[in-house]
Amino acid sequence: MQGDIQGHNNKVALVIGAGDATGGAIAKRFAQGGYISCMTRRNAEKLTSLIEEIEATGGRAYGFASDARKEEQVVQLIEDIENNIGKIEVLVFNIGANVPCSILEETARKYFKIWEMACFAAFLTGREVAKRMVTRQQGTIIFTGATAGLRGAAYFSAFAGAKHALRALSQSMARELGPHNIHVAHVVVDGAIDTDFIKNSFPQIYEKRDQDGILNPEHIAENYWHIAQQPRDSWTHELDLRPWIEKW
Amino acid sequence: MQGDIQGHNNKVALVIGAGDATGGAIAKRFAQGGYISCMTRRNAEKLTSLIEEIEATGGRAYGFASDARKEEQVVQLIEDIENNIGKIEVLVFNIGANVPCSILEETARKYFKIWEMACFAAFLTGREVAKRMVTRQQGTIIFTGATAGLRGAAYFSAFAGAKHALRALSQSMARELGPHNIHVAHVVVDGAIDTDFIKNSFPQIYEKRDQDGILNPEHIAENYWHIAQQPRDSWTHELDLRPWIEKW
Amino acid sequence: MQGDIQGHNNKVALVIGAGDATGGAIAKRFAQGGYISCMTRRNAEKLTSLIEEIEATGGRAYGFASDARKEEQVVQLIEDIENNIGKIEVLVFNIGANVPCSILEETARKYFKIWEMACFAAFLTGREVAKRMVTRQQGTIIFTGATAGLRGAAYFSAFAGAKHALRALSQSMARELGPHNIHVAHVVVDGAIDTDFIKNSFPQIYEKRDQDGILNPEHIAENYWHIAQQPRDSWTHELDLRPWIEKW
Amino acid sequence: MQGDIQGHNNKVALVIGAGDATGGAIAKRFAQGGYISCMTRRNAEKLTSLIEEIEATGGRAYGFASDARKEEQVVQLIEDIENNIGKIEVLVFNIGANVPCSILEETARKYFKIWEMACFAAFLTGREVAKRMVTRQQGTIIFTGATAGLRGAAYFSAFAGAKHALRALSQSMARELGPHNIHVAHVVVDGAIDTDFIKNSFPQIYEKRDQDGILNPEHIAENYWHIAQQPRDSWTHELDLRPWIEKW
Repeated sequence: MQGDIQGHNNKVALVIGAGDATGGAIAKRFAQGGYISCMTRRNAEKLTSLIEEIEATGGRAYGFASDARKEEQVVQLIEDIENNIGKIEVLVFNIGANVPCSILEETARKYFKIWEMACFAAFLTGREVAKRMVTRQQGTIIFTGATAGLRGAAYFSAFAGAKHALRALSQSMARELGPHNIHVAHVVVDGAIDTDFIKNSFPQIYEKRDQDGILNPEHIAENYWHIAQQPRDSWTHELDLRPWIEKW
Repeated sequence: MQGDIQGHNNKVALVIGAGDATGGAIAKRFAQGGYISCMTRRNAEKLTSLIEEIEATGGRAYGFASDARKEEQVVQLIEDIENNIGKIEVLVFNIGANVPCSILEETARKYFKIWEMACFAAFLTGREVAKRMVTRQQGTIIFTGATAGLRGAAYFSAFAGAKHALRALSQSMARELGPHNIHVAHVVVDGAIDTDFIKNSFPQIYEKRDQDGILNPEHIAENYWHIAQQPRDSWTHELDLRPWIEKW
Repeated sequence: MQGDIQGHNNKVALVIGAGDATGGAIAKRFAQGGYISCMTRRNAEKLTSLIEEIEATGGRAYGFASDARKEEQVVQLIEDIENNIGKIEVLVFNIGANVPCSILEETARKYFKIWEMACFAAFLTGREVAKRMVTRQQGTIIFTGATAGLRGAAYFSAFAGAKHALRALSQSMARELGPHNIHVAHVVVDGAIDTDFIKNSFPQIYEKRDQDGILNPEHIAENYWHIAQQPRDSWTHELDLRPWIEKW
Repeated sequence: MQGDIQGHNNKVALVIGAGDATGGAIAKRFAQGGYISCMTRRNAEKLTSLIEEIEATGGRAYGFASDARKEEQVVQLIEDIENNIGKIEVLVFNIGANVPCSILEETARKYFKIWEMACFAAFLTGREVAKRMVTRQQGTIIFTGATAGLRGAAYFSAFAGAKHALRALSQSMARELGPHNIHVAHVVVDGAIDTDFIKNSFPQIYEKRDQDGILNPEHIAENYWHIAQQPRDSWTHELDLRPWIEKW
């Protein structure tokens, strides 16, 4: 983090939760569009190849090991980026925790952890970044949501609860921060995504890839980019994304 | 807790959060309808006059000091009631935490505590009671919701998040437990309630009482009673309650 | 329509669409509660046995042949009832038109007729009755809705459109007329009802009756009664009704 | 309509209701993107300058006088375009009818006409175009919605009814036609648009233009373009658009 990156025109896109294909694709898309992509996951070493890939195409990217559930880590991360890299103009929160369970078997520990990852961490990062954006009266914050944010299905009390709370956070922030020229949006991703997780754990779902039946992370990323480029007279607060053959 | 209350026909209505007028009115209504009303709040002594009032009209009631956010306390409470008083046939969860705050000023501690009170405690009690109800294939669980469960207003990120998550919990439990003959419902209370809190803290709102502009706790309770009496071919999962002059 | 029914204290519950078991049960419930039940269907003769049944238990009821899609008939009906029978204190609109069809095959005629029956007729009767209620600053209007009012399923473009529009009508009227002490509510009936139609046309669904898997019209009616009795500090605008085993 | 336009590769974007700035901007955007823009309004002469503007920048466009509420006109229009100009690959339905009125004063004629314009016409054009798209297993249909499609405000029973029904149409068609590779989407435009109508009739609202407080039709159009370009693994069914300072 030397020299050239200290310039006042450096604009940063921060992706919290770049551990999956979606976060990575979003980081790549914003790097391609001229942002410095900063990415976090709990194990930063796993970001190395992604950073190299971005740099190989002329982009700039940095990886951080950071646990978004820990307030002091979040505060430090934002401070480091703003002091050393550039102004965070875009925040993407992309941590999920989709673990179904019967309400009769759900443990307090797991119920808490799912909320902590999918909602509390979003609150912490959203708030810290918003503090900076408000002083500049500019910025975009995008939360990755899910259908579980709209509907509490059987066996999804924990995940649906966290995603409902995330959606409420997004709406509340959008209403408070919009008049400060901060665009807050919520993307409802409805369907399986083309990730190693789906490939390995749900091969039957992964088979739908051949007919475009699962979401391509690059196509998801294109929608995040679109939202971040909307002029402020025409902001989207919520859009859904799903494959053409997905039931809903 | 001796003798007569050990009978196998004792049916219990448990009200978690009987510290306000609403919880108290609900406890009275179910006692009047033949249930043994069990009530919790953090300071049980404050329940004494309510219990006396119920007993004075021939009802039966018990008060418990219990912190619904503590798993071991919740587990113990349910066990005590089921072992010593009767079968919990109705659970009403009635803890709120309506504290507005700018997202820029909201603390992690408060954001967590509001969720812990309004949602996590509901999960703990709902799960523990559901375990008992499932073995009997019978029961009713009612969650007190709010408009904040439907819409994330500016300055309400914490409360709206908790209430959204509560609504998701209610939907998820309703869908999983309905086929076990357990009726789960969510009541959206939209408006100020005739409580000491409103009387003392919001006198201008309290003035609307004269024209029925704030909710009467006894009338709220009547709707909980109505829900609990619905035959299983016609269950309500969600209803709203608001004064005639309330904007929405 | 002589003598005694001219009294100023006669209060009328008008049920538009009493041709099915639900409308009939609602008319019976309000008659039992002291209202004079007025009922319409296109062929009034078919109401004879229902009127006799109500009268046999000491209630009072009148039947009218009226096509609720025809403005002049609706205007005349309301005028006749108000002039000759009593004040309409409760209006229940209960006409459905659940006919699925592929969008590719749907005819303009059928698309229009479904809207005309399930929505336009509701507008006409709602407006005419509201005019009377506003002068008295009192009344209750209940619309029978459906899940199709909340969600546009495949093959239900016409029915879902009409029911969505009906729900919008209910919300708009509730917001405008509430401050005039007129309670407007929308009941989402989700599931098959115990009617001759289901019995004869969907015998496999009707089999669920033995396990309370279809809605009992009398139980539906009890909820309409409950809504109409709510004090004005605690009005419900919307509730859903579905059998315990219904998927949703 | 000569020679070159008969080629099999001609792809058409049809905009129903190009009489306002939004429809015009959409037509321009699709022409710029390589589509032949076909536009309708009741008086086709008023489309002349728009067509000239598109042609001046190298695009191709045709105007049609067509009343979208008339089935025979709609059928003829689609047939003419498909036979003489090209395959309709994109349909945009953009007719509104935002006329508030008290429910007590609303006429049957106006209630019907608002539905006829904003919903029935959408059904007719949507169905006719869908029939063609289904044979090709390809196409995009976008309906211009409004906040009134989500919420029935006081004094908007007619407009909210029509827009609710339109949204139901969009959902139902999306669910039925998605698996036929036809992308159906609904855009919720929430706020005043920069049109002559707003400029002349609501000058106080128009003043917000200076601070980007009303929607720019070109920016709206960019979102329609974005939707039409989405790969089928990542389709949006609904997005909202509103100015940064709009209350919602």
